[in-house]
Amino acid sequence: MLRKDLESKSILKVGGAFDAMSAKLVENSGFDAVWAGSFAISATHALPDASILTMTEFFDAASSMSSTCKIPIIADCDTGYGGPSNVRHMVQKYESAGISSICIEDKTFPKQNSLLENGKNDLLSEKEFVAKILAAKEARSDKNFIIIARVEALISGAGMNEALKRAVAYENAGADAILIHSKQKTPDEIFEFTDSWKGSAPIVVVPTTYDSVKISELEAHKIKMVIYANQTLRVAHMAMSRLLKEMINADHISDVKDKMSTMQDIFSLQEMYDIKNKEKKLEEELKKLGYIN
Amino acid sequence: MLRKDLESKSILKVGGAFDAMSAKLVENSGFDAVWAGSFAISATHALPDASILTMTEFFDAASSMSSTCKIPIIADCDTGYGGPSNVRHMVQKYESAGISSICIEDKTFPKQNSLLENGKNDLLSEKEFVAKILAAKEARSDKNFIIIARVEALISGAGMNEALKRAVAYENAGADAILIHSKQKTPDEIFEFTDSWKGSAPIVVVPTTYDSVKISELEAHKIKMVIYANQTLRVAHMAMSRLLKEMINADHISDVKDKMSTMQDIFSLQEMYDIKNKEKKLEEELKKLGYIN
Amino acid sequence: MLRKDLESKSILKVGGAFDAMSAKLVENSGFDAVWAGSFAISATHALPDASILTMTEFFDAASSMSSTCKIPIIADCDTGYGGPSNVRHMVQKYESAGISSICIEDKTFPKQNSLLENGKNDLLSEKEFVAKILAAKEARSDKNFIIIARVEALISGAGMNEALKRAVAYENAGADAILIHSKQKTPDEIFEFTDSWKGSAPIVVVPTTYDSVKISELEAHKIKMVIYANQTLRVAHMAMSRLLKEMINADHISDVKDKMSTMQDIFSLQEMYDIKNKEKKLEEELKKLGYIN
Amino acid sequence: MLRKDLESKSILKVGGAFDAMSAKLVENSGFDAVWAGSFAISATHALPDASILTMTEFFDAASSMSSTCKIPIIADCDTGYGGPSNVRHMVQKYESAGISSICIEDKTFPKQNSLLENGKNDLLSEKEFVAKILAAKEARSDKNFIIIARVEALISGAGMNEALKRAVAYENAGADAILIHSKQKTPDEIFEFTDSWKGSAPIVVVPTTYDSVKISELEAHKIKMVIYANQTLRVAHMAMSRLLKEMINADHISDVKDKMSTMQDIFSLQEMYDIKNKEKKLEEELKKLGYIN
Repeated sequence: MLRKDLESKSILKVGGAFDAMSAKLVENSGFDAVWAGSFAISATHALPDASILTMTEFFDAASSMSSTCKIPIIADCDTGYGGPSNVRHMVQKYESAGISSICIEDKTFPKQNSLLENGKNDLLSEKEFVAKILAAKEARSDKNFIIIARVEALISGAGMNEALKRAVAYENAGADAILIHSKQKTPDEIFEFTDSWKGSAPIVVVPTTYDSVKISELEAHKIKMVIYANQTLRVAHMAMSRLLKEMINADHISDVKDKMSTMQDIFSLQEMYDIKNKEKKLEEELKKLGYIN
Repeated sequence: MLRKDLESKSILKVGGAFDAMSAKLVENSGFDAVWAGSFAISATHALPDASILTMTEFFDAASSMSSTCKIPIIADCDTGYGGPSNVRHMVQKYESAGISSICIEDKTFPKQNSLLENGKNDLLSEKEFVAKILAAKEARSDKNFIIIARVEALISGAGMNEALKRAVAYENAGADAILIHSKQKTPDEIFEFTDSWKGSAPIVVVPTTYDSVKISELEAHKIKMVIYANQTLRVAHMAMSRLLKEMINADHISDVKDKMSTMQDIFSLQEMYDIKNKEKKLEEELKKLGYIN
Repeated sequence: MLRKDLESKSILKVGGAFDAMSAKLVENSGFDAVWAGSFAISATHALPDASILTMTEFFDAASSMSSTCKIPIIADCDTGYGGPSNVRHMVQKYESAGISSICIEDKTFPKQNSLLENGKNDLLSEKEFVAKILAAKEARSDKNFIIIARVEALISGAGMNEALKRAVAYENAGADAILIHSKQKTPDEIFEFTDSWKGSAPIVVVPTTYDSVKISELEAHKIKMVIYANQTLRVAHMAMSRLLKEMINADHISDVKDKMSTMQDIFSLQEMYDIKNKEKKLEEELKKLGYIN
Repeated sequence: MLRKDLESKSILKVGGAFDAMSAKLVENSGFDAVWAGSFAISATHALPDASILTMTEFFDAASSMSSTCKIPIIADCDTGYGGPSNVRHMVQKYESAGISSICIEDKTFPKQNSLLENGKNDLLSEKEFVAKILAAKEARSDKNFIIIARVEALISGAGMNEALKRAVAYENAGADAILIHSKQKTPDEIFEFTDSWKGSAPIVVVPTTYDSVKISELEAHKIKMVIYANQTLRVAHMAMSRLLKEMINADHISDVKDKMSTMQDIFSLQEMYDIKNKEKKLEEELKKLGYIN
């Protein structure tokens, strides 16, 4: 489904999520896929985005999204949680949970968030990262399980040539898509990259810092997927912070009502009404079987 | 700490949370304690508040809050996940994870959310619920682990006398506090309850439906703890829903910036800067030991 | 696969397991399927077989077996962890993890082990258990996901007629197989049951107490599946107990060697050598790509 | 308790375990502490001992042992699951779960089992491993939480001098004990190490390969702790393998009875009888309160 979309649509819009509810909201809003982002998932655990949470915890979050959503889940798997053997195990685990795609990045483990000022952004050798892609490719059982290779050369300061060289190497090794990441305020280096790109693997971007870039510009530069990775997290953080401050100081809380969804909205997301419908259906079946008059 | 606060403060304000980040925000906003609510936790898993998630999953959420927060965590434990043996196991597990208090309610298992229209709200027999309180009391190792008994008689339609009779029985059995729940739009029946209450256990309320009640009124009616159980969840739900709809339709997303916290706000919550400080400190120690010049 | 086997084979032999290693050994020994038994799984957690562990923990064990084994996993799901809604959620979760079958029993929740002397063995009403079977049937997406209904009427003392009546009702409701349980020292009541059985659902037995019964007798009485539920656990328990007592008193431990598998046996079970083979294959691929000379 | 024992006893005997039941058996047999070994825990998941399982899964196993046992749990934490930040998080997590001690080894991540023939045994630089010990020391809140540094220099072929140099460095950095590991068939290099050792940190050994060494010899060479790391696993593996082969071929299984513990033995380990006693006690309390006549 994700592969088909990548071929047929001009650009895929992917929304970031950190739990099943945020993933469901991404789906309900019309996005093409969900990004199970490690920065956001770490944040909801109140832990640094620095390989502190383990694969198990990231997997649990992505797997819970996958149980809930019909649109594809793309799991942000950081550096792949170790070497090729870890990547192999990871791909089997994620694929059997119904997750559609994983993304791994070419930094050393343990990583730090790419946008942290003065953060550590050491690149893994091309050879070692290629080994991870080969392992991922060998481990998947379905070719439609999409392997995204994230190039951190621009973030780390290794430069455009290195970024392009690696992107070529990763596609050759079997990556189905290339995520080129940047922490610039403008999309200039991203567009320089895409304009020089001769490969056939679709290009993916995450415009967290260059957020004024237009969809039409992305499309014009042959970008096939845009990920809004952490905005859901950040809007939830602000909304809760503000509400809590208001509530701690309020004499009564009825004024905050219009900033909040209703209980009914939440019941609906949880499919509480579905439980009631199924109870009714069950009663009818029990009637047919003679257990209820 | 929670017991001390119950004795010394006029009224405790408790904020609802569903993961470590929301719990941390509750703490940062000045609340006295965190309510790890089962409705909200179920919602973030996109699953009904109907005993679908298991104790393990509720525990994981509460335990993650407890690792993050300095203020007490009060865990909403629904009906106690079974009979007295389950409650015993549960209390030991929650207490060793550093959680300060559990709350159990006198409905039958599996339960449904108390505020669901036409929801199932069957009461457990008083005897069986008293057995659970006795088991909880026997299982805790520290008397300051607070056992809250939640009376559902008003929700279920069993009436005021039943509510009072049960509250007395639960206090006699060892409950440290009584949560009296109501789904009325006004606090009238709550106040009728508290005005008739002769016990010495502190009274706790959750004004989700009667949200215009004033703190001063609660205090006047001898209520010692007010829980804002699900507002954080509902404001996050609305904020994300709106932002996602805006983003799916936007040509660029820079306009949404002022509705969101910054990356730096999140880094700060995650203590990313703390990691960097600790790295610096480590470098100094390695210097002292002669490993770095 | 399980359904096919039930149709084609004279009798299926199923071995009990409590973790992935014991499941793998069951598979390696030639059994037709693995029984992920709740008694044994509880025991490895050193917790009573009394609904103390949650579905999450039982599921994790069964799911880990399913990742490891090629033969079908049959998950012992006790009473179904609640009512019909819980069973529905459970079936979806187990089926998506690749587990082939679940077994639920008609006792009240929380249950106690059926073989505990003077244990509590209250039966759930037929109507309520039929509701669980209906829910299970509706929740599965593949008809080859096998629903086994376990009849506890003989254990609870409700008698042969009740056992037969319930077995008929459960088959009518959609159960794919009937497990008739007994705690007698002889198979007499089991054979009385099977000889009176007119249904078409295959019959399953667990001869823990009547262990001198012969396979040929089971076949003669039209029994299609025999489960050796807890012998692996019990032999491991005894072997470890003895070895530990020997080791605590020994001056040196080389004498115990022939009672233990070698490190190489374990490496082989873990597929450590497979990791080494895959490393070699990876090296060859890296050579082809020019990364290694 | 572990520190006190290290000071007062001539030598501590530690038994390996992989789940709560095996840990309980270690305790019941009179050992001083439990070794929650990563090789054995990986094996029960049927996964290679090659950093494939995550800290979460190793932690769950150790934590489950800690809930069950009164004697100290020593958790084998491989390389510490990353860099100093990971070790810091790990120590906090393990310490709050009541685990008494962690052991980390100076190999690179991902590791391979030290006894695997032709396995990868690359050493981490001394500086980087010292950084992990410093982080562990800083992270613990109680000085009695014991940090064991495992020296792999002899395993990796770096030689005796390197082993001694590193042991000194690790003690200087704050390690409470030094585990010196060897894969020789005789204890010669271990005794060469201990005879040259001038430090005051107690020495720990794991005589898996040199299993004919006598306790009296270990004591004579100033060794303070001996860990029988994986014998429980290996005896369980062999006992189950043999029994399963016997059962698959048997016409009836009553002959295997004397190789297995009884159901009652297991009930006793699980404290099933304790549940029944507590039920009785509860009944008495309910009588006193007037709920039962």
